[in-house]
Amino acid sequence: MSDVQKRSHLEVCVVAGDDAAPEVVLPAVSLLRDLAPAIHFTQAVSGREAQEVYGDPFPAETRAAIDAADCTLFGASGGPSRPVLWYLRWGKQTYVNIRPVRWLPGYQSPMRYPERIDYVIVRDNLEGMYPPREGALAEIGTLASSASWWQAPPVAETGAYAVRVSTDTQARRVAAYACDLALQRLADGYPGRVTLGAKYSILPRTDGRFREIVRETVREHPELSYQEFLIDDLGRRMIAAPETLDVVVLGNEHGDILADVASGSIGGLGLSPSACYGSDYAYFEPVHGSAPDIAGKGIINPTAMLLSGAMLLTRYGYREQAQRLEHALARVYSDGHILPVDQGGNASTSDFITAVQSYL
Amino acid sequence: MSDVQKRSHLEVCVVAGDDAAPEVVLPAVSLLRDLAPAIHFTQAVSGREAQEVYGDPFPAETRAAIDAADCTLFGASGGPSRPVLWYLRWGKQTYVNIRPVRWLPGYQSPMRYPERIDYVIVRDNLEGMYPPREGALAEIGTLASSASWWQAPPVAETGAYAVRVSTDTQARRVAAYACDLALQRLADGYPGRVTLGAKYSILPRTDGRFREIVRETVREHPELSYQEFLIDDLGRRMIAAPETLDVVVLGNEHGDILADVASGSIGGLGLSPSACYGSDYAYFEPVHGSAPDIAGKGIINPTAMLLSGAMLLTRYGYREQAQRLEHALARVYSDGHILPVDQGGNASTSDFITAVQSYL
Repeated sequence: MSDVQKRSHLEVCVVAGDDAAPEVVLPAVSLLRDLAPAIHFTQAVSGREAQEVYGDPFPAETRAAIDAADCTLFGASGGPSRPVLWYLRWGKQTYVNIRPVRWLPGYQSPMRYPERIDYVIVRDNLEGMYPPREGALAEIGTLASSASWWQAPPVAETGAYAVRVSTDTQARRVAAYACDLALQRLADGYPGRVTLGAKYSILPRTDGRFREIVRETVREHPELSYQEFLIDDLGRRMIAAPETLDVVVLGNEHGDILADVASGSIGGLGLSPSACYGSDYAYFEPVHGSAPDIAGKGIINPTAMLLSGAMLLTRYGYREQAQRLEHALARVYSDGHILPVDQGGNASTSDFITAVQSYL
Repeated sequence: MSDVQKRSHLEVCVVAGDDAAPEVVLPAVSLLRDLAPAIHFTQAVSGREAQEVYGDPFPAETRAAIDAADCTLFGASGGPSRPVLWYLRWGKQTYVNIRPVRWLPGYQSPMRYPERIDYVIVRDNLEGMYPPREGALAEIGTLASSASWWQAPPVAETGAYAVRVSTDTQARRVAAYACDLALQRLADGYPGRVTLGAKYSILPRTDGRFREIVRETVREHPELSYQEFLIDDLGRRMIAAPETLDVVVLGNEHGDILADVASGSIGGLGLSPSACYGSDYAYFEPVHGSAPDIAGKGIINPTAMLLSGAMLLTRYGYREQAQRLEHALARVYSDGHILPVDQGGNASTSDFITAVQSYL
């Protein structure tokens, strides 16, 4: 299952991140502490702050704090904290990225019927084209398969290649996670439908194989239904018919792009939480960047951070507390009196958090 | 410039394509003949029809007819005609794919404010990850650059790679086309703004280089403005702030995905024309598929095909005729009495075309 047993001692490492990110991370931690006093939070520094203290944006002390915890609550990287993020992702092998996409009344969506939007993107977090594996074009003439390609690569020209990789192991665990989540949502009244998006028509050995594995995995669960679309068509459907989606499973770069399109459809990145899960580690992160343009102004929208905190609570068995937090957020938005600047209001970060607390 | 001189003898090869595609291609040709009697149309067969007549879905006769023409008007491929499409694309080196994204009153858009949508996507049509270049993961351990990668690829695992290629030559001509188009639109009252979307933060040698070349190319035209976004952020902006876009330049697979998201935002693929230009060839194609589910029913929306025809007319100097056709289409939609099934109406393909003709 996608949630683990409630931990009597849960250790969360907090890395506030760059620019405006600490302005949402620190109040969120304070609120989570109130909600679930049993959880223990420790803070570790990164980026410019760590550079000043330790002479390193990702010091050994921070790595040790991350390793000593069960999971990390991360703010956002504006560049300086990127090594931390890469460690959380590839170092801790958090193989799957979860992006819930759900509109709530009060969110300023650009869609005509945003009430139809309520699904979750499950994305490969480790393979595909990230991390980068690039080189000069001339090199790929040596690849054994190159002789069999329909069109020879332009190896004599000035240019570069990037390699996209995919393994059966990773496809299987991403597919398994998507099925677990669909089963869990089915129990909550959702349709229990897994939707694959990939370019299987053009890329049989990578995306075609991914499709095959997802299909096989879903077939092991007769309660679940399955649909598949070419990735371009799925992108269109996310806009045209989001009500047909429940759990959407995507490769790394496809998920990167379409999860942000999805965020756009509910009203922006300020509303979009995420979680990344590995076999024995997890991290939680709002998907907005570090927002350097509004750093220090106290107006960054804390919704994505608070919802990421709710994902943390749910993951470790504090489901009732997570629901209280989600309901409080929903009430503030449906009231519509105290809204963050990016949602058409003029509330400061702290005014908004106070409003949420008043409903807890 | 993106339009060429008016041809006194323009030869257009018509390949109707698969499934429902001929139902829009043939009436469109008839309408184009009426509008511009000087243009000469020849028809060539492909797919199942060609298989029956010549024993080959892409016979030498069709290839000769394509080669003998200045351009091809193509229906859609449902699979059998794909070799024709690949020939038009890679065989004829049509290096740039143009996707206008413009909402008209009457289009059934899922957006709250679709009147803000009026931009053009300029997409690499030849490189990136298409055509496929895949192989077994173990092969990439031999690549010279692999030793320098931040993370070694999992070459010992069962899996596959796909290669993405990019050359400076192709980036330069795509960028040059985008600038030409932006200048032309500037003359028509648009902002003259080129927007690049790519993953330059993660992929410096491919997407980073593409960014560098597009930046340099735009800088040669002081009349134009420039903005750039990470591809995920651009996807979000297409939904959240389409009014900030004018000419959007994208790599092959990014453009493939986001152009369909864009089509979704105006009301669907049935409304989305395209053109692909090379140095000495062009083809025009509605972006919808061959719609096998409605083949033979006479209800496929001909708008994308007619607008592709208008792009053909404009390209070869028949701008006044193209505008007449576009205005007639706009009037039918703004009337709202005779609408295709995919736009919430119940008009047949021929009823709709008759309505367009009545305004020509």
